Amino acid sequence: MKKPTITAFEKSPDRGQGLARDMRVRWAFEEVGQPYDVRLVSFSEMKKPAYRELNPFGQIPTYQDGNLTLFESGAIVLHIAERHTGLLPKDPDARARAIMWMFAALNTVEPPIVERSMAMIVERDKSWHEERLAMLEDRLRVRLDELSKQLGDADWLDGEFSAADLLMVTVLRRVGVSFLAQYPGLTAYIARGEARPAYKRAFADQLAVFTGKPSSG
Amino acid sequence: MKKPTITAFEKSPDRGQGLARDMRVRWAFEEVGQPYDVRLVSFSEMKKPAYRELNPFGQIPTYQDGNLTLFESGAIVLHIAERHTGLLPKDPDARARAIMWMFAALNTVEPPIVERSMAMIVERDKSWHEERLAMLEDRLRVRLDELSKQLGDADWLDGEFSAADLLMVTVLRRVGVSFLAQYPGLTAYIARGEARPAYKRAFADQLAVFTGKPSSG
Repeated sequence: MKKPTITAFEKSPDRGQGLARDMRVRWAFEEVGQPYDVRLVSFSEMKKPAYRELNPFGQIPTYQDGNLTLFESGAIVLHIAERHTGLLPKDPDARARAIMWMFAALNTVEPPIVERSMAMIVERDKSWHEERLAMLEDRLRVRLDELSKQLGDADWLDGEFSAADLLMVTVLRRVGVSFLAQYPGLTAYIARGEARPAYKRAFADQLAVFTGKPSSG
Repeated sequence: MKKPTITAFEKSPDRGQGLARDMRVRWAFEEVGQPYDVRLVSFSEMKKPAYRELNPFGQIPTYQDGNLTLFESGAIVLHIAERHTGLLPKDPDARARAIMWMFAALNTVEPPIVERSMAMIVERDKSWHEERLAMLEDRLRVRLDELSKQLGDADWLDGEFSAADLLMVTVLRRVGVSFLAQYPGLTAYIARGEARPAYKRAFADQLAVFTGKPSSG
């Protein structure tokens, strides 16, 4: 049986910190034990018509398996989770809540995180940078306070580890260690995700693309 | 059988234009013919502990059906689509692509739209407002160009109308008519969504909350 193929950055802008969105899909594959191939793409290739056939928005990752092509890391992770055991609870209500937390990670928690990162990159030289960054950080703190309160001292968002935790951990990693130091509960939550063997394999594989050294697996 | 209950704004900030996120869920219920109840909540109620039990982020809509409570409009629409016919294709690959477009609507197309709306509200009096708004509008045009090209002259994103179109139309409506005038294809796409009888019923019901007049249905 042919392995699915995903795309990832040829040169990841995060220098192998595992913040690019292929990490989510690699981790999901590792959790369910599904081997996969990776095709590396350059920034210029991602904007060309041939790549736009895979993803009209010119982003990584894409997923190809036979005649099916998908983009959107959340949708790819959900697709993998639906076709294998281990990433979604069997109980229908618990499954619906896990999918709810997948949407919450990407649609409620990620936007203020990405806005802050973007401001730190594209507005760094603007006269308003500091004033606006303070606004964005206040807004981000509101979300992280809410999430932190909800998680409490639970290990995972809702019972067992699921695709929701996989997405939420990757989303939270983008905040950065020093800002997250205000949230020991969320920091420990991320560490629990990073301690999973499947996470470690996925992380090593994406790092190997950057360092040029093959991962041990 | 008990009807599911959703929450919506007691006083919608859009004055009944159907831009609040309960509209998506109302529309989904109408498409599949599922009656539902609405519980109106005030802004102060949404921030109280009792409401946070339903949604830790203190937002509308929430969904309650028996023992199951959900938040995140995308997850609620997907939940409804999975339990009824009419909002997701039966073919497994087409179904996966429809779910991909649901994530694309909320995670790739919506963020630059919301960022622009937010800037127009919270940064209107800032010295940098006009300069930054121009940046945001450039960024939004990139996304809308890509989406418009992808849609081409098709009626819907991928074959038949699906939950993906439902979300994408509601996301695009937030851009506003004048900015969207640059995109006749997307304007026509929105109009096709708005012409559906289920959309019209949902729109009338949310408007009735604002006007205080009961809808005809």
